[in-house]
Amino acid sequence: MRIVHTINEIRQSVLGKKQQNARVGLVPTMGALHAGHGSLVEAAVEECDFVVVSIFVNPTQFGPSEDFEKYPRTLDTDAAYCEQLGADIIFAPSADQMYPAEQLTWVDTEKLTEVLCGQSRPGHFRGVTTVCAKLFNIVQPDLAYFGQKDAQQAIVIQRMVKDLNMPLEIHICPIVREDDGLAMSSRNKYLSADQRKQALCLYKALTECQSQVAAGQRQVALLIDAMKQVIQQHQGQIDYISIVDPQTLDSLEQIKQKALVLVAVNIGKTRLIDNLSIDLNTPANPI
Amino acid sequence: MRIVHTINEIRQSVLGKKQQNARVGLVPTMGALHAGHGSLVEAAVEECDFVVVSIFVNPTQFGPSEDFEKYPRTLDTDAAYCEQLGADIIFAPSADQMYPAEQLTWVDTEKLTEVLCGQSRPGHFRGVTTVCAKLFNIVQPDLAYFGQKDAQQAIVIQRMVKDLNMPLEIHICPIVREDDGLAMSSRNKYLSADQRKQALCLYKALTECQSQVAAGQRQVALLIDAMKQVIQQHQGQIDYISIVDPQTLDSLEQIKQKALVLVAVNIGKTRLIDNLSIDLNTPANPI
Repeated sequence: MRIVHTINEIRQSVLGKKQQNARVGLVPTMGALHAGHGSLVEAAVEECDFVVVSIFVNPTQFGPSEDFEKYPRTLDTDAAYCEQLGADIIFAPSADQMYPAEQLTWVDTEKLTEVLCGQSRPGHFRGVTTVCAKLFNIVQPDLAYFGQKDAQQAIVIQRMVKDLNMPLEIHICPIVREDDGLAMSSRNKYLSADQRKQALCLYKALTECQSQVAAGQRQVALLIDAMKQVIQQHQGQIDYISIVDPQTLDSLEQIKQKALVLVAVNIGKTRLIDNLSIDLNTPANPI
Repeated sequence: MRIVHTINEIRQSVLGKKQQNARVGLVPTMGALHAGHGSLVEAAVEECDFVVVSIFVNPTQFGPSEDFEKYPRTLDTDAAYCEQLGADIIFAPSADQMYPAEQLTWVDTEKLTEVLCGQSRPGHFRGVTTVCAKLFNIVQPDLAYFGQKDAQQAIVIQRMVKDLNMPLEIHICPIVREDDGLAMSSRNKYLSADQRKQALCLYKALTECQSQVAAGQRQVALLIDAMKQVIQQHQGQIDYISIVDPQTLDSLEQIKQKALVLVAVNIGKTRLIDNLSIDLNTPANPI
């Protein structure tokens, strides 16, 4: 497995494979890879002939008071993990490669980015959509893989691809959890042992919601109250708890068929997110 | 030469040619083709193996009080002209093809679009960059052709391509003029016989500027005054006259080496633009 750092190198590599009609998969990551990312790489290896993993801690998606500086950077371990999973090449550019001049052009998806994480993290999604547009243009994959863990991001990226007629498919892979239910996240590394226990409140709140829905509860206000209680019992600082339409991200009052339940909670200084998809027409899977 | 109206058809056509390693050229137009467009098609035919001309009057680049409704639509004549010039296919989508749902995602280039035509036509360039991003993603050309007549547009598109790492080259072709000097424009069709004479003031102002620069004048304020006089003698309503840095579009006070002289003038209800590139290091060509 190769590791390349420049746009020219990755383009040359992919071009060579495309000329052999290879199906190219891209897994865009910020590194600090865990089994969640691993599942994306595995899906890509399964479905594609040539798998690119990009590792780039993208400065434009961090707010000024956020954790860009301390975000974990573990390229050697990440590379070994990708190789073990069967990835073909890692594209790990510098910030200067990706942003050689002042970035004047931005890709922005309205409405869907103005709620939930977009409200707490102004500019975050504009950074995400812009860097993904750049990565898609650089790598020109047939498929790109994202995790359901970042549910709003997945919805925004899919909308961007559709709105701009980008010539690739987006695959969204299920959330991967630790044995006790905590959703895998690179930011879990920030948690102390005590915070690690507290952090389980996101998962517990979502399972509580799922049980109540299974028992017939459809009132969003009551479901949110129940989740709030679970999180507060664990001293989590709630950023938001929302139950929304999974297409429009509009808040629901009642669950009628499909719904997306999202939670964002600060555990100490670490902001964690998790979510649950509900579809009353299909049997619920344990999360 | 084929004419297709759907994204699927144009993609299939281009894909077939790409598989034969054809170099694909795109000439994006709004139709109502004149010899200016013709020069773009000719350049594409010269340099590419497969030439797509897109004809789409893009609603998102017109302001609410602008001429979207009355913009000339002459598909049959345009098609005959493209065929005669050697184009391979016309892509003439409907607005529903290009915007099947609410467009939430926009490509926007900051700063360069906030001055000159961007100031008079808020939202115009966001519509242009977004539709060009869509067309580039649909057609996936190796080269796309634009006219120097729309100088600011050419600069914005080039910056968008660079900022977003779009995998194509942009070629800018020289302004094509009528025998008397009027820059070719689809909007010239709006002019009455009297207005047609008045409209020559844009060209006359630019040639006046060029003569004064040739005679040693370097003071932008004085050059602009001279151009203003020419335009006012012809009863043109000045929107702007600017002399700017051709890279940043920042206004200059003095011409030191390269400069871009731009004029936008209303002749009756018709808004016309024209421009002149200056480079003190190379001998000036008559415009």
